[in-house]
Amino acid sequence: MMQSRTHNCGELRMENVGESVTLVGWLENMREVGSGLGFVVLRDFYGTTQIVLETEEMVKTAKAINKESTISVKGVVRERSSKNPKQETGDIEVVPESITVLGRCRYNELPFEINHSREADETARLKYRYLDLRNPEVKKNIILRCNVVAALRQAMMEHGFMEITTPILTASSPEGARDYLVPARKHPGKFYALPQAPQQFKQLLMTAGFDRYFQIAPCFRDEDARGDRSPGEFYQLDMEMAFASQEDVFAVCEDVLPPIFAKYGTYNRASGAPFKRIPYLEAMEKYGSDKPDLRIDLTVNDVTETLADCGFGPFATKAEDGTETNVRIKAVVVSDFKESRKFIDKTISDVEVQSGNKAYWFRIDENGELVGGISKFVAPIKDQVVSALSLKAGDLVVLSSGKLSAAQKTAGVIVKTFGAAVPGHMDKEQYAFCWIVDFPMYEIGEESGELEFCHNPFSMPSGGLETLLKAERGEIDPLSITADQYDLVVNGVELSSGAVRNHDPEIMIKAFEMVRLGEDDVKAKFPAMYNAFCYGAPPHAGIAPGVDRMVMLLAGEDSIREIIPFPMNKNAQDIMMGAPGFVTDKQLEELHIRTVDVEEPEE
Amino acid sequence: MMQSRTHNCGELRMENVGESVTLVGWLENMREVGSGLGFVVLRDFYGTTQIVLETEEMVKTAKAINKESTISVKGVVRERSSKNPKQETGDIEVVPESITVLGRCRYNELPFEINHSREADETARLKYRYLDLRNPEVKKNIILRCNVVAALRQAMMEHGFMEITTPILTASSPEGARDYLVPARKHPGKFYALPQAPQQFKQLLMTAGFDRYFQIAPCFRDEDARGDRSPGEFYQLDMEMAFASQEDVFAVCEDVLPPIFAKYGTYNRASGAPFKRIPYLEAMEKYGSDKPDLRIDLTVNDVTETLADCGFGPFATKAEDGTETNVRIKAVVVSDFKESRKFIDKTISDVEVQSGNKAYWFRIDENGELVGGISKFVAPIKDQVVSALSLKAGDLVVLSSGKLSAAQKTAGVIVKTFGAAVPGHMDKEQYAFCWIVDFPMYEIGEESGELEFCHNPFSMPSGGLETLLKAERGEIDPLSITADQYDLVVNGVELSSGAVRNHDPEIMIKAFEMVRLGEDDVKAKFPAMYNAFCYGAPPHAGIAPGVDRMVMLLAGEDSIREIIPFPMNKNAQDIMMGAPGFVTDKQLEELHIRTVDVEEPEE
Repeated sequence: MMQSRTHNCGELRMENVGESVTLVGWLENMREVGSGLGFVVLRDFYGTTQIVLETEEMVKTAKAINKESTISVKGVVRERSSKNPKQETGDIEVVPESITVLGRCRYNELPFEINHSREADETARLKYRYLDLRNPEVKKNIILRCNVVAALRQAMMEHGFMEITTPILTASSPEGARDYLVPARKHPGKFYALPQAPQQFKQLLMTAGFDRYFQIAPCFRDEDARGDRSPGEFYQLDMEMAFASQEDVFAVCEDVLPPIFAKYGTYNRASGAPFKRIPYLEAMEKYGSDKPDLRIDLTVNDVTETLADCGFGPFATKAEDGTETNVRIKAVVVSDFKESRKFIDKTISDVEVQSGNKAYWFRIDENGELVGGISKFVAPIKDQVVSALSLKAGDLVVLSSGKLSAAQKTAGVIVKTFGAAVPGHMDKEQYAFCWIVDFPMYEIGEESGELEFCHNPFSMPSGGLETLLKAERGEIDPLSITADQYDLVVNGVELSSGAVRNHDPEIMIKAFEMVRLGEDDVKAKFPAMYNAFCYGAPPHAGIAPGVDRMVMLLAGEDSIREIIPFPMNKNAQDIMMGAPGFVTDKQLEELHIRTVDVEEPEE
Repeated sequence: MMQSRTHNCGELRMENVGESVTLVGWLENMREVGSGLGFVVLRDFYGTTQIVLETEEMVKTAKAINKESTISVKGVVRERSSKNPKQETGDIEVVPESITVLGRCRYNELPFEINHSREADETARLKYRYLDLRNPEVKKNIILRCNVVAALRQAMMEHGFMEITTPILTASSPEGARDYLVPARKHPGKFYALPQAPQQFKQLLMTAGFDRYFQIAPCFRDEDARGDRSPGEFYQLDMEMAFASQEDVFAVCEDVLPPIFAKYGTYNRASGAPFKRIPYLEAMEKYGSDKPDLRIDLTVNDVTETLADCGFGPFATKAEDGTETNVRIKAVVVSDFKESRKFIDKTISDVEVQSGNKAYWFRIDENGELVGGISKFVAPIKDQVVSALSLKAGDLVVLSSGKLSAAQKTAGVIVKTFGAAVPGHMDKEQYAFCWIVDFPMYEIGEESGELEFCHNPFSMPSGGLETLLKAERGEIDPLSITADQYDLVVNGVELSSGAVRNHDPEIMIKAFEMVRLGEDDVKAKFPAMYNAFCYGAPPHAGIAPGVDRMVMLLAGEDSIREIIPFPMNKNAQDIMMGAPGFVTDKQLEELHIRTVDVEEPEE
């Protein structure tokens, strides 16, 4: 008999009737029906079982025990007279011979009712997380997370990847977000940093001759919390492959992720391989976003040529003095639109709040007439507009305008907001993956007015050294150079950026020279990696989908705290454990630091 | 074609002869035999393949490439005329059509020769760890580690355990070793701490209703390095079970560990279930150690009664003034001893160096005569000694004396040293597990002279509250109380301590009252856990075998740095990454700390 029981609380069935059993668990509830009749719900990790009390003594015994105490019940399994089909053990009940308290709950009142903890105040939930987690609705997200992580590991290993653990105490890096620092006791004035990602280590592993690396990697960024980002630590499915191209990384992700999404997600459908690939510029133009939600069938059209001169002020591409305004006009056509005027107003308003920009609209009614919104400006050029957008009766046209980026982004919000709100334009119950590819390597800096890196300076420029040399010789526009860099997007959520890395110091230096930097700058950023690459590195590529985000998507949760066993609150505190907290002067002395601007110790 | 190749470098066999292939890897070596003949060894993660160069041009091409550059070789597979049975691909070679450099090694000279890196200076190895790891002999330990961790995970999941990740940024705890601290940016003056172990979190998980938890858990202790302990971080196979007893924990470990040790270890034999259980006091008495190496057949006998009065000074149990010396005399009988006098002297000297105590000896020669060492003192009571130790011809008797603990420990060193040195007394090629059980709960403090906790105050006293109450009432000696605590030992190495935890605040307080402490002291140590236990906790038990130690044992390595991908040096530095390092004033300012006693910045 393991763990003090013959069966767990989710296990007993009709075939166990008549057996003598021992169950252990939490006394979830006790209902007294009469002086000699009562029912106890006994709960453990696996389920609940009904215990029926049929003597005055048993009722008295059970009544004396506070809810949420742990108890052991010895008894006999009996068929229930009135079965409960919603409970896995609902066909039976246990008639106890003895009930023993194993761990007394001291309190008669709990901070919240276990099975309704999700409705409780978040601070109370986090402070009493051990009670919150007793709620099966809360616990199931943690179980999901464990299962998803185990499935990811399993799949990666089946694909020949080896999980290698990289250091958590490492060096502070000048790049990226803010580091968490750890004072080094044996080296006064020096600090370790917790890794923002194992990026350098995985590239060093490639240089060290490992072929397919992965890690469910803890990452640390000292940034403020967001809905989908926990303060402190988060996890990535970090992977990297030697001698690999973009195609290799895509093939692995397309093989590994969809089955796990379909199996563990709230939706049981996921894109098959190959995922749609959308060049970055096309994504911005067609979806108004580099994180398109492909479950939505709406797309963005540029109607600047058609509508610039319609007389509607915000669409004017020339200012009164005749100078270019650089205004672009974007239109999203929502077909078969049958909703009310009120619906339009509300959804337009949602778009405006979210995008911080104005949105406009007009409609083609069932008679083919232009009506509503800005229709009076459009009416005079109706034919051109209908033809440009292939409009037909019942179409709603929602528009944005402004400088290219603002017009695109607002149109992207129009797509997502109207796509989700208007029936028939979103095939919601699925996980729709896509790749965003061909990111520009360079851009003209808004402040400097000169060429600057656009995304990651350490991604390989497509075409390698040859392309950079062509640009240097003036044969191609440096702005046309793309990087072998890619984003993995599902349902409008970016899971990760990845890239073919620039593994060649010569190409690195050339890429930096394009933006008026040189070898010293390359070295300064990642000295260990740069040194390593001088000793013969393989081409390599990788990606690192966020585990927390994936689990959120699969669980259908909006708060990241619902899928972490012991989350910090939004203020980066663990109020259950009292972290962060004050430490002793001796501890600080040993670490050769002193605190400044200290809060008054509370008590 | 994935990862730029048709095959890897360990893959080609006779059946591939005639095929056109592309291989990628590191140019390990180039041997020029003549102007038109040469051989290249191409190495990747999976193995090596011979490339044969048969034209002057190819020889020239290959000669121009520095060793350890990464290259791509396109060519045709051919049967070798002289095969190499030691190489997996030794039946074939590849005749190249083209050789392309993918990642140039800039240097003609490396800091050490890759395949002899283990002989290089450790600082150079750690600085160029990415080169060191290219050595298959170094890499294989990392692969072993990955395989062992994966096997442990797999086995735990097959036993119904769920891997749950606990926080890495948490609260400093007053117990145990020194914490690594992390200044909290948003809470001036406060600090997170990295967990020394997930002990509190796993107990909170039990209280939260999880049933079988495990985690390959990163642990952090700011302690100085030792041979078997890395500075900074290390990993535990942390596990805990609800409603569990010692038996449950033993059953899981006995099921999970031996097959993995037998499969991945340098020895392919491991103890089957059940492991031998040795009460702590018996272990000290019989093996002179709480970490006995059961591969050795020698044991310790107490011969105080027999030898106290033999006249040999160090054995005297009464001082000249007649007072008790508390001296105990321990004897280890080494049967079938055939080694030289010189061997005895050397081994005795090893014992004395290791134990810091004297050791003595005598022998029964082939004629049954007492000879050598202290035999002249023993000779007069030969019959009693022979009978007490059941001595026979050919036996060597090695002895220690002193206060109980010193005599025991020295005898333990005698067992291990002579057991390993004298042929026939150690069945070495195996993993011999045992449990040390029944640890005393209390002891009389050497300084205080009063009752104190002996090991872990939070383990459950055997017999629970009842036993403590008996001791309180004076019915039993508190020193006779044992704790439900256990050590897992293999081949003389402690893998872990574990315990049935004290989950009951009432028993906790009583246990603390025995040593003149109370509820406030209990609360002060682990406030979150204490609070949680007041809301109904299940009895629970667990253990946390050290992953690094297990992998060291399996790899047969003496230095922990051989089984860690990127280890710190003994001085807690990662010299490859430059950790720890100086950070900017802005970083410190944001964290509300200032450094003191700072080393002069080096350059």
